[in-house]
Amino acid sequence: MRFTSAQRLDDGVLEREFTLGEIPGTLWTPESAAPVPLILMAHNNGLPKADPRLVARARYIAARGYAVATIDAAGCGDRPPSAAAEQARADLRRAMRAGEPLDEIFESLVGPLVEGAVPEWRTTLDALLELPGIGGPVGYSGGWTALGIRLAVVEPRIAAAGFFAGGYVPRAQREEARQVTVPLLFLLQWDDEGNPRQRALDLFDAFGSKEKTLHANLGGHTGTPSFELEDGCRFLDRHLK
Amino acid sequence: MRFTSAQRLDDGVLEREFTLGEIPGTLWTPESAAPVPLILMAHNNGLPKADPRLVARARYIAARGYAVATIDAAGCGDRPPSAAAEQARADLRRAMRAGEPLDEIFESLVGPLVEGAVPEWRTTLDALLELPGIGGPVGYSGGWTALGIRLAVVEPRIAAAGFFAGGYVPRAQREEARQVTVPLLFLLQWDDEGNPRQRALDLFDAFGSKEKTLHANLGGHTGTPSFELEDGCRFLDRHLK
Repeated sequence: MRFTSAQRLDDGVLEREFTLGEIPGTLWTPESAAPVPLILMAHNNGLPKADPRLVARARYIAARGYAVATIDAAGCGDRPPSAAAEQARADLRRAMRAGEPLDEIFESLVGPLVEGAVPEWRTTLDALLELPGIGGPVGYSGGWTALGIRLAVVEPRIAAAGFFAGGYVPRAQREEARQVTVPLLFLLQWDDEGNPRQRALDLFDAFGSKEKTLHANLGGHTGTPSFELEDGCRFLDRHLK
Repeated sequence: MRFTSAQRLDDGVLEREFTLGEIPGTLWTPESAAPVPLILMAHNNGLPKADPRLVARARYIAARGYAVATIDAAGCGDRPPSAAAEQARADLRRAMRAGEPLDEIFESLVGPLVEGAVPEWRTTLDALLELPGIGGPVGYSGGWTALGIRLAVVEPRIAAAGFFAGGYVPRAQREEARQVTVPLLFLLQWDDEGNPRQRALDLFDAFGSKEKTLHANLGGHTGTPSFELEDGCRFLDRHLK
């Protein structure tokens, strides 16, 4: 892991860009004498790690006493574009505008992205846990629910998970949701135009976790009230601190 | 309003029993120099105001800086039993054990109870707001969702409402849910044996409030995790303080 830039932000959080082989990432760490837990934060596929909403969430959580890390998925953000992924995303946008069924397009776009991303996140996790000041335990908090499900299933170091939305998740992850057993907070928007409500509720129902909480708020995909960020931190605090 | 007993509890909260005409009630108030908001807290029908779970919630909220009041409904707790209500409750228990449809029994039991309770709660509210140290605004927080809906519709002094469960609510209140416009927090247990999940979700959907949040946790009716009490207070803080 090689750090390529570092800046101390107003809230005392240190923001560092890094590369790990081909993987570009960002790490936010708080000022802390003791080692802090680590949060892996992925965004929904296609959005770069520099997306302002992700950055704002990451900084908020870091200021609460967590190391927060994100990486760009293959074909996204700072990585070379992938013609196949670009085509699949264009197909998805066109189908959404036309009101056509999205399942097969979604499956062909997101299924391979999840498969490709999981080993990269695990490699990143290995490297992050070797850094001084990051002590575990590890949580997942992100809008890329399909990735979070797969990671929570294959990665025993993840001790708690916060998911957002989740109406569209590939078949493989819908099926393995029952294998997720860590405490989880599942956040959804009641009128999320891109995530059918009943599917999200079915996914919440399917998780194998004994401790799982659903938070739903009125409004569309980007309308999550700001107090949910605080609620999300309190969930992480209960399980990781 | 006549106070019949008073005791200062360990957490500094003053617990007073009162009567207002035929209505017996309890009022919990915190140590506070400034006037505090008022929370009306009803329990599901049939349970007395002395029910330990209600008392524990009331004391917790009072210690957070609220006046909290509850009264016994007609035929409940310290009030003379009502033969008709006792019979309806016995019918309900029998039908639940037998797995029979509950709607008509529920309607005939709870419908009249709500109708009778609302004027008593409003009379109590009038009296409470004349006490020194209670400054409004007013919130509703309780497990008797049907009563809370009716009160939120007819009582403009109620500025926020927290409801629990709500799978079984009389037709009249299901219909007037769309007239509820105050911010609300709707709490349900995912596997509540007495409150069908889909009905509770439909009720949440029906509320007219622009700001409404659903919290759902795994488990049965009495399995609500303790952190929801803190979450409920934070909801009240956002809207009443």
